[in-house]
Amino acid sequence: MSNTNEPLILVSNDDGIFAPGILALAEVADTFGHVEIIAPDRQQSAVGHAITMSTPLRSRSFQIDGRFNGQAVSGTPADSVKLGEDQLLDRKPDLVVSGINHGRNAGIDILYSGTVSAATEGTILGYPSIACSCTDFTEDADLSGVQEAAEKVIGYVLEHGLPKGVTLNLNAPSGPLKGIRWARQANSRYVEEFEGRIDPHNKSYYWMAGKMELLDEGEDTDVKLLEQGYATLTPIQYDLTAYSLMEKVKGIEL
Amino acid sequence: MSNTNEPLILVSNDDGIFAPGILALAEVADTFGHVEIIAPDRQQSAVGHAITMSTPLRSRSFQIDGRFNGQAVSGTPADSVKLGEDQLLDRKPDLVVSGINHGRNAGIDILYSGTVSAATEGTILGYPSIACSCTDFTEDADLSGVQEAAEKVIGYVLEHGLPKGVTLNLNAPSGPLKGIRWARQANSRYVEEFEGRIDPHNKSYYWMAGKMELLDEGEDTDVKLLEQGYATLTPIQYDLTAYSLMEKVKGIEL
Repeated sequence: MSNTNEPLILVSNDDGIFAPGILALAEVADTFGHVEIIAPDRQQSAVGHAITMSTPLRSRSFQIDGRFNGQAVSGTPADSVKLGEDQLLDRKPDLVVSGINHGRNAGIDILYSGTVSAATEGTILGYPSIACSCTDFTEDADLSGVQEAAEKVIGYVLEHGLPKGVTLNLNAPSGPLKGIRWARQANSRYVEEFEGRIDPHNKSYYWMAGKMELLDEGEDTDVKLLEQGYATLTPIQYDLTAYSLMEKVKGIEL
Repeated sequence: MSNTNEPLILVSNDDGIFAPGILALAEVADTFGHVEIIAPDRQQSAVGHAITMSTPLRSRSFQIDGRFNGQAVSGTPADSVKLGEDQLLDRKPDLVVSGINHGRNAGIDILYSGTVSAATEGTILGYPSIACSCTDFTEDADLSGVQEAAEKVIGYVLEHGLPKGVTLNLNAPSGPLKGIRWARQANSRYVEEFEGRIDPHNKSYYWMAGKMELLDEGEDTDVKLLEQGYATLTPIQYDLTAYSLMEKVKGIEL
């Protein structure tokens, strides 16, 4: 049972409850309130905003690093936040944080990211939410700069809140923090996506193996500013309506 | 090999290649060009924009209804469109259509929808793309109204194109078409999300069982206009940057 005088912070991710990054984020969150870790029981990268409807979910309790209450959920990142909020926590969270992801979630990656989706799910449910990722995907990456950036952002959000419907997406390189810049999502896509191979039974199969292509020359994008060594903070929304187009199309009769 | 004088239309979905809805959409697309069906080999509802990176993909060729070339992909809707475009088609598509989904993809459903994600993936890859869904989730729903609406929208898009980065999301009730209205994504969320049960071994499990709660009083939303019996068309974008907030936050130093 958590002390209701301090903020309850739900920590999730997509790399699974035993990834180093989630512990690094829990350590930061712990300086602001009571931490409950509720995350997928296994690696769930690139699952996007998938939810599990055709099979039931289960959860198991753990102590993480001997310090944090953890629950491992047999589902996706979005499942974990939904189930945590609805059933597993003893009160509603004050903040949802997701990460630290081992790998960048910038540009088009944001669409595919389970880390971002866990935070977006927090926003949908009505809580201020932040996704945190490190550009270095190795498990032993130096996350100190991401932690420092996350500390600043969490502190800001707990004090000021966030507008309804907005999630903050934080990315940072490994190593020391150079500074945090507001950035927009870079227009980008993956190219040379698949590598075809032949199996020992002479049948073909395909590995996804694409590289991100930047389609955006702006200096104010997440991808560009990360390349310059900055941490980036992007406010994102789950209202996907293309409002800029709505005005133009309203006169078109179909 | 398709005749290069006619548009090549890639048809995908999330209910799987053998769902009735995909055949209904292929029939419509067939009146405009050459159809290739490339879709998941099984039900993939609510997978969102998941992609498959940790296992390789396979595809198998089928004749669908004795008329259409089909390839069943061992992955998600987004995988199917990516693999189709990159490896399986003999030329690049002129249009990507996804559906007809058995079930509405309006309001917050858009975030979870594999149907929408297949179309969004088409947009990311640079092709005009349309998602089509029927509010009736039963397999024997009367899809004639959705087909009529899809025909109008496909005809419009093949003639006029779509702005870069925009996907059209079409929903329609079952039965005859009452009319098509432009609509924005309704602000909504799921409530009473999980039903907890105890298994025969005395362990708890949870079924996702929520109902959508409309948080939006607007008369111009997809959810509202569908309730009034109209088909709805929503332009959506994959740039998730909350631009309305960017201007406000740029002065905040973190």
